[in-house]
Parts: sequence; C-alpha cells; structure tokens
Amino acid sequence: MILDSSLADRHAKSALDRSRELGAISELPDGILRQYLTSEHQRCNQTVDHWMQDAGMLTWQDAVGNQWGRLPSKKPDAPRLILGSHLDTVPYAGHYDGILGVLLGIEVASIINEQNLELPFHLDVVGFCDEEGTRFGATLIGSHALAGNFNSDWLDMQDKDGVSMAQAMEDFGLDPNRVGDASLKGEDIIGYWEVHIEQGPVLEAHDLSVGVVTAIAGARRAKIVIKGQAGHSGTTPMNLRKDPMCGAAELVTGIEEFARNCNDDRVATVGMIHSNPGAVNVIPGRVEMSLDVRSQNDDAREELIAMIESHMNRIAFDRSLSFEMHWKYGIAAAHCAQKFHNLFRAACVKNQMPAYSLPSGAGHDAMAIAPLCDMAMLFIRSPNGLSHHPAEAVYKSDVEDALKVIFSSINQVRA
Amino acid sequence: MILDSSLADRHAKSALDRSRELGAISELPDGILRQYLTSEHQRCNQTVDHWMQDAGMLTWQDAVGNQWGRLPSKKPDAPRLILGSHLDTVPYAGHYDGILGVLLGIEVASIINEQNLELPFHLDVVGFCDEEGTRFGATLIGSHALAGNFNSDWLDMQDKDGVSMAQAMEDFGLDPNRVGDASLKGEDIIGYWEVHIEQGPVLEAHDLSVGVVTAIAGARRAKIVIKGQAGHSGTTPMNLRKDPMCGAAELVTGIEEFARNCNDDRVATVGMIHSNPGAVNVIPGRVEMSLDVRSQNDDAREELIAMIESHMNRIAFDRSLSFEMHWKYGIAAAHCAQKFHNLFRAACVKNQMPAYSLPSGAGHDAMAIAPLCDMAMLFIRSPNGLSHHPAEAVYKSDVEDALKVIFSSINQVRA
Repeated sequence: MILDSSLADRHAKSALDRSRELGAISELPDGILRQYLTSEHQRCNQTVDHWMQDAGMLTWQDAVGNQWGRLPSKKPDAPRLILGSHLDTVPYAGHYDGILGVLLGIEVASIINEQNLELPFHLDVVGFCDEEGTRFGATLIGSHALAGNFNSDWLDMQDKDGVSMAQAMEDFGLDPNRVGDASLKGEDIIGYWEVHIEQGPVLEAHDLSVGVVTAIAGARRAKIVIKGQAGHSGTTPMNLRKDPMCGAAELVTGIEEFARNCNDDRVATVGMIHSNPGAVNVIPGRVEMSLDVRSQNDDAREELIAMIESHMNRIAFDRSLSFEMHWKYGIAAAHCAQKFHNLFRAACVKNQMPAYSLPSGAGHDAMAIAPLCDMAMLFIRSPNGLSHHPAEAVYKSDVEDALKVIFSSINQVRA
Repeated sequence: MILDSSLADRHAKSALDRSRELGAISELPDGILRQYLTSEHQRCNQTVDHWMQDAGMLTWQDAVGNQWGRLPSKKPDAPRLILGSHLDTVPYAGHYDGILGVLLGIEVASIINEQNLELPFHLDVVGFCDEEGTRFGATLIGSHALAGNFNSDWLDMQDKDGVSMAQAMEDFGLDPNRVGDASLKGEDIIGYWEVHIEQGPVLEAHDLSVGVVTAIAGARRAKIVIKGQAGHSGTTPMNLRKDPMCGAAELVTGIEEFARNCNDDRVATVGMIHSNPGAVNVIPGRVEMSLDVRSQNDDAREELIAMIESHMNRIAFDRSLSFEMHWKYGIAAAHCAQKFHNLFRAACVKNQMPAYSLPSGAGHDAMAIAPLCDMAMLFIRSPNGLSHHPAEAVYKSDVEDALKVIFSSINQVRA
C-alpha cells in the first residue's frame, strides 16, 4: 500500500508542528532541555498522551516512565509491533532528535485509524523516558528497562543537585522497587522500529531523503595517557627531549591514517586532548587524549584497535615514552533484522525512492531493544549533519518520505 | 690568579648554606615563594644586606627594590663591575634559581675583601627584586629598571588580590614616581656578570660542572588556532571530516621534525593544546595550541618559523581547515660580550677545567641588562636539568668551580 501524497503532506506537517510544540516544554528559558523524572518529563508525557488518544490509541505510562499508546488489533491476543524513540533531550537540544520518531509513530497510527485499516497486530508507539542520560549519566534507561536490563545500581546515581534516581522516581510518582514491571516478553513482539534523524552527513552527501540502517555500530572508548619528561622549552635541546606531545601527535596521525585506509564504516576519533602542565614554555610531562573507535563489524573494529595499539607501542619504544590505554566503555554492534531491512528497502522502491543502506555510527534505543526482539531503523537526512544543537533541522519532504516508507512497510507485516 | 681549593670549599659551602637559609623566608608554609614588594622581599633584602656587610660591602636598596652591595675601589670615581642575579622566586621554587648567583657574588667579594686584594673598580653585587614576574605578570622588573626600561604602565598591573604595583610600592616604602632613579649610566659600568644554574640538561649530558654562555636565545611565542568542522564521532565517516585535531597533530609532527633537523640550538615546543568542545564522542570544531620557538640566532629562528608557517598553510589547504597564528611575545637574542666570554673560557682553562660554551635557552636578567652594558653569564650544571621545582639541586663541587672561574676572571679585568 502507498500513502497518498496529500496525507503524507498533512501528517508530516503535523509531526513537525508537534516537534516544535514539545520544544516549548523545557527546563531552560533560552533552549530545549527535558530530563528524566522532571516536571517537564511529566508535561511532555501528558501532551504526547493526548496526541496518542487523538490518534485513536489507548494510552499508559509504564513503570520506568515511558509513554505508551496502542492502536489495538481486533484480536486481543495479537502480537505487537512497536514504533518509537525517545522524548528526553540533551541541554540546548534541537527539536527532532528522538522526538520526531515518536511523533511519526503517532501519525502513522492516526492514518491507519482514520482509514479503518485492520492490522493483525497491536500497533504500539513508545516514547522512551531517557535515552540521552543527561540527568543521571546512565543512558538508554527506558529502552533497557523494556528489555529487562534496567540496572538497579542506577537507582543510587545522583543528579547534580544530589537527588538520587530512586528519590526522583518517588517524587515523579513511580515506585523504584517496581521498575522491573516495565520489562516486556520478546515472544509477544513482532519487532521494534525506530525512525530517527541521521545526525550525520552521509544521506546529505548522497542527496537522499531517507536511508535504511544496517546495524548500530559497536564502540569502544579509551583514555590514553602518555608520559615523558617535562622540561623547559628553552633549555632542553631537541635531541634530549622525551616529549609526550610529539608522541601524541604521531599517534593521532596514525589513528586517522589507519581508519581512513580501512575504506569501510570504521571510524576512529580523538576528541579530547590535554597536556600537563600545559604552559607555553614547558615541554609537557604528560599528555592525555581520548579515543573512540566504532564499526558495525565488531571484528573489524578490534582489528583497527590492534593496529592503533601496535603503532602506540612502536612510538613508545622509539621515543622512550610510556603509554597507558585505559578502556572506559565498550558495546558490541547491534544488527538490524534482515527481514525488516529488506521490507524497508522494498518500501523505498515501491514509493519510487532509492533504497540506500547505511550503518548508524551513533547509539540509539534500538540498540538496547535488540536483545529483546528484532529491531530496525530508518534514518532521515540531517541538514549539515547537525544534531544536539538548536539549529538541528529536517526537510518536510524527507519526513513525508519516511512516513511513506513506514506506512508501506507496516502494511506488509504479517503477524 | 687561582682561588685556593680550601677557600673555594669554604665559600661554596657558605653560598649553599645561605641559599637554603633564604628558602626559609617564604610566603608558603610548605614550599618556597618570595614575590616582589612583599614582607618576604623585605626580609630577604635585609638578610642579604647583613651578609653583604659581613663581606665588607657598603649596602643600599635602590628605587625599584633591588638590593645592592659594594666592595669599593680606593679610587672613588672608579667604574663598576656588577655581579648579580635575582632574589625572587616562582611558587614552590627550588633554592638556587637566581639566589645562588647573588650569593656567589657576595662570596667573591668576601674573598677579595679578606685577602685585601685591590681592584681598579668597584665590585658591585645586585640582588634583583623581580625576575620571575610571579606577582604582577611583568618579568625582569629589577633589571629593566636598571637599564632605564621600567615601563610605567606596569604600575597599574594588579596582583591576584587586586593590589596595584604602585600601591604595593608605597606599602613597601618605595615611591612609584621615583622608580626612574634606579636606572644606571652605561658608561660607568665595566660589565654585568651573572652566574646561574643552567635549568637544562646540556652540561649534565656532557658531564661538565660549568659552561660559558654565548648568548641568551631570542624567543617568539604564538597561539595557533585551527578551525575545522565539529561532528559526531560515530556518524561522520572519515572521508567527510574536517578534523582540526588531525591537522594539529600533523603540524606538531612537522614542528618537531623541522627543529630537530636544524641540528643547532634552535628549539620549538608545543606545550599547551586544547580541543573544543573536547568530548570523547565529538570531532572537535576547534583546536588551540601554543608555539614557542627559540634560538640565539634571530635570523635562524625566523627561518624556522617560516618553515612552520609554510607547513601550516599546506595542511590548511590539504585538509580544508583554517589556521590562525597569533603572535603573543617576541624578544631578540642577547649576545654575551665576546671579551668576557673569552675571559671566562681562559679562566676555565687556567683552573684546569674544560672550556665549554653553550647558549642559554631561558631568559635571564642579563638579557634586560644587555642594552645598558656588556654582559656575560656562567652556567652551573643542573642535576636532571631540573628547576622551578623543590627538587632543584646543585653539586657543591660545581659551585666551587664557578667560584674559581669568577675569581680568576675578576682578577684579569682591567678597568
């Protein structure tokens, strides 16, 4: 089935208007911020609840604070297909990251409801409560809870005012001892689909409105500490130096070269660098830098990391420096279900769009849902690759395309 | 004339004991700090004044707060030879930087006085009030004042408590309107000699006790700003990046390579680096770094800077980055007078030491005195090249060698 262009136009407009309307629910006077378990979280859920009801859905809030709507199947024991994303934001966020995926789910439900289409499954829409981790530091809280992976240690984490997550849950009206109730059973779920802005430059570089995600890249992050010999910048001849800044520079150059030469989706980034003591007239004794390595292929990522480590060891030997690699974070790649990937690509073709596949370099709720059920993602082009920024944008015609792909795909799903 | 070894032993010991005694006059409970125009400055000058008197000297404090002693010639209108260095310190300083040069001057005067040697010139010893610039930021204040280069704008500079230099002078008992009285006339001065710890690793690397300074390196310092395109570390493929961190790394590598390949005294250092926003998962949009380039040969230094700038422009072109080079500071090299350099080398040979010449990569009061009169410097080995640190050290036998060289040299000077 093909979504009529006038319907696509009207519902894309509605999703965009509502994205901007939600932006007004903010903790900041001069920007967007909605954190977990705040009164803004509550007002946002209430607003989304009304919109879900307007779309003909049954609504509820679950035990962790996720907002739900259901367009029920006539068969009460039908399985469920879940569309969703997250409703929380980073500080000074844009209007669309996460939000747009939830609102497009509601628009799709609204269309199906208006058209009295019968589905052999419940069509559920979820607005996750905390993907960004802005308030407590833990990320993907809502989706982890769904998959039964809420970590009870998180309840002791505190926000910047010293309020624990457990306390904040109670203040919000949730019972911290019953967060487990938010978990679902995988066998009842056909799949989880997430529409999200790309937050990167790839679709724009290919002049494409939407792209079908192959997998969410796995990532490893390290802090690298390089120690040498501090010295006076004037009195220490070049040949008597053990300068960790020069060792760091050689390492950064190698990291870039290795990742580039992979010629695949592998990326490696040094985002943070710091020298100690960090004065214009002192050769530093110590340089610290961050490393972030990602790929949708876990083995390929480890291969790149091994190249970087080997390069690091050679530099250490050549320059009489010491290197330490402290691994801080690691997550395996999460693959989108092949059947949904094929469904989305077929829907692109049916709607006369190029079917283009790409990996997601960023993490998303779908990654946390992957252990629970099959998942899939559709990306919408991000102008200038911009996200987590007030100037984050989407083109309305791209949103229409996303609506068409999801609508066509839903009508192909067999329970 | 050769200094007797037992005298050298006794007077080296005295200078070292007094260096440690002065360390007790400190603003810090757990380290050494003596800043300009503080009560510690006053107590230090008083203590040094007593030691100068014990050495048979006439003493006074000048209009900027330098401490003076004179072993007068019998001829009242004789010219003066000035020995000296500075008495102020950085925070958590060592015992010898500056201090030892002043105290060795007093020991030399004491020896000449004890031995009733007649000199055809006044032997002056000066303890400069502020070389480090710790309190107000301006450096070489005492020596600049001597050369008539005290900048009256400095009077408005404030310390961290908001006290202006003018106010601090009044509190100290000096008249800020009469600082000019501290300036000397060059024609009355035979020269200025400064003994100082090397603060670098060169003498140690050559297993030498002392070295004769050829020149004080000129220096230029810049802040380099590199701008690229910030982006998400996961969603931005390697080939779509404009990463200023990678551009900075390539530049640092080039700076080191060019300076090394000079194979002379030229040094170039990147001591500070900073990325913005500086997060593990963000390709930075901007990287800032410092550059410090030094040489005793001003033309050679400019040649190295030109190579660095040309490399920077090539990187900018290749990587679509923008570079800005903000020059913050520049000072020309100051050459030690050839006649004194030769005198010191001859004194080394006469005392059966190798005569070794080296440039000073660090700035010293002698640099500020150079416009006033001929100057010369003698370096004493710094174990581990360490300075500006509580573990700063000297070997007593090296101090004896320095005393011998200065004593022999003084007795060769003809007025």
